[in-house]
Amino acid sequence: MNTAIECIPCFVRQAAEAVEMSVEDKIGKEHLLRRLLAEIAESDWSVMPVKIAQMIQRTVRNETGQSDPYRALKDLMNRTALDLLPVLTDTMRLQQNPLDAVTRLAIAGNLLDAGAKTRLDPNDLQKHLNTIWDAPMAGSPEDLFRAANKADRILYLADNAGEIVFDRLLIEALPTSKITVAVRGLPVINDATLIDAKTAGITQIVPVIANGSDAPGTLIEECSKEFRSYFNNADLIISKGQGNYETLSDMPGNIFFLLTVKCPMIAADIGAPIGSLVVKRGKNNKS
Amino acid sequence: MNTAIECIPCFVRQAAEAVEMSVEDKIGKEHLLRRLLAEIAESDWSVMPVKIAQMIQRTVRNETGQSDPYRALKDLMNRTALDLLPVLTDTMRLQQNPLDAVTRLAIAGNLLDAGAKTRLDPNDLQKHLNTIWDAPMAGSPEDLFRAANKADRILYLADNAGEIVFDRLLIEALPTSKITVAVRGLPVINDATLIDAKTAGITQIVPVIANGSDAPGTLIEECSKEFRSYFNNADLIISKGQGNYETLSDMPGNIFFLLTVKCPMIAADIGAPIGSLVVKRGKNNKS
Repeated sequence: MNTAIECIPCFVRQAAEAVEMSVEDKIGKEHLLRRLLAEIAESDWSVMPVKIAQMIQRTVRNETGQSDPYRALKDLMNRTALDLLPVLTDTMRLQQNPLDAVTRLAIAGNLLDAGAKTRLDPNDLQKHLNTIWDAPMAGSPEDLFRAANKADRILYLADNAGEIVFDRLLIEALPTSKITVAVRGLPVINDATLIDAKTAGITQIVPVIANGSDAPGTLIEECSKEFRSYFNNADLIISKGQGNYETLSDMPGNIFFLLTVKCPMIAADIGAPIGSLVVKRGKNNKS
Repeated sequence: MNTAIECIPCFVRQAAEAVEMSVEDKIGKEHLLRRLLAEIAESDWSVMPVKIAQMIQRTVRNETGQSDPYRALKDLMNRTALDLLPVLTDTMRLQQNPLDAVTRLAIAGNLLDAGAKTRLDPNDLQKHLNTIWDAPMAGSPEDLFRAANKADRILYLADNAGEIVFDRLLIEALPTSKITVAVRGLPVINDATLIDAKTAGITQIVPVIANGSDAPGTLIEECSKEFRSYFNNADLIISKGQGNYETLSDMPGNIFFLLTVKCPMIAADIGAPIGSLVVKRGKNNKS
């Protein structure tokens, strides 16, 4: 997916949020946001949205000297998700179809996305999560589980902190022994890194690798050799979230995309309305 | 009210919307939006938000040669409001307190605001309007009607197209013979001008003047001598919408502000949460 005119206000909103989180004084905030506006105005808009988001976050980190401005938010998201976990696990077990239920929870966790426009306040999260069991879903969890049972080597691409707590439940429901989880190589927005995988308890159940990149998505050419080797050798990729979808949706291979649709551009591309839970095979899937 | 860091993403969203509405080709859209981003980055942020919004809309009009890019949207908003009018008038008459009901309708019409973040799709409007009769309201319509009965010369500052159709009902419920309505002097965003007052049938019941300005609010110093004379001689000003609130909230005088709260900055300033219906005396009211 390439950047559209409609993406530009979203970049500016992300830039303003990053400025709020990394600069304390009003003059400093203004100075940095002006710089980011100018940078967006002058940047190449023919690239994927993730590239522009990456540029913005790099500038924020370089200019403020803060390597991880979203750390406090990510900790809050992880804590909130962990606090909700017991109740949600109980509710999940009451659902008729357990595979459908655990997939729904892992996808709905994607709403814990500080980078997205329709993100939820942690306080609203529990209320929202009560609605996910009956929410419309594009695609079929059964297809995902069938593909996972058939596969030998599964690479699970995590998306955000908080959300990753719910990913653990899905990973436990899938054939766990085949799975490796990949997280971002460096902090970017609220995307999960190794520390979040550890907090979510995922490092205790499967191997976790960092992808070597600071893009809020998966730009294969920027990822480490180790990550590329896992990616190329996997016979099933499970990709969480909009950032990974944007960057991988045109790739060939056996990829399942799991995400909550949060923007009109993704909605149009994927053919499902905003708010949908999606579990869909990649367009270029040959299998 | 002055511009805050939080206003900047909103300006960019407004700019992108104006670009979408006034330029057809992708290259032209991109060129104009880049220019607007640079203009926002370099502009004075110590002014009222309305000044920056005015600058953006001026640039769009100058660069595209379109004097009224929102005309089609305003026509749609007027039509939608006129279509809903008979049903809403019937529902309004079923309410226990007629003054409260007509005030609610005039304020809720303010959601027909293409410039605001939480604007409603015309199709969602009827659904929303069914909820307004019981929605929480900050302030008292009774105070407004009491002030109107006491006043001799009332100046009613309209806000947007569409909304102005519902203003007519409130104007008819107030002491109509004392009222003059003012609209914007030139098209800006979806704000009402003379043609909208005519479409709403307001010119048939009260005198209507244009304020001489292209600001999406009321910047007194930019308004015509005629408008200023009406403004200074009125012993009650009824001010609709956020743009008029932003620009007049610190003014002395007998002003009532009627608006739907649509942004966090206004919410904080006015002390009522987003989504509230507000009918409030100005802070510096001496009467």
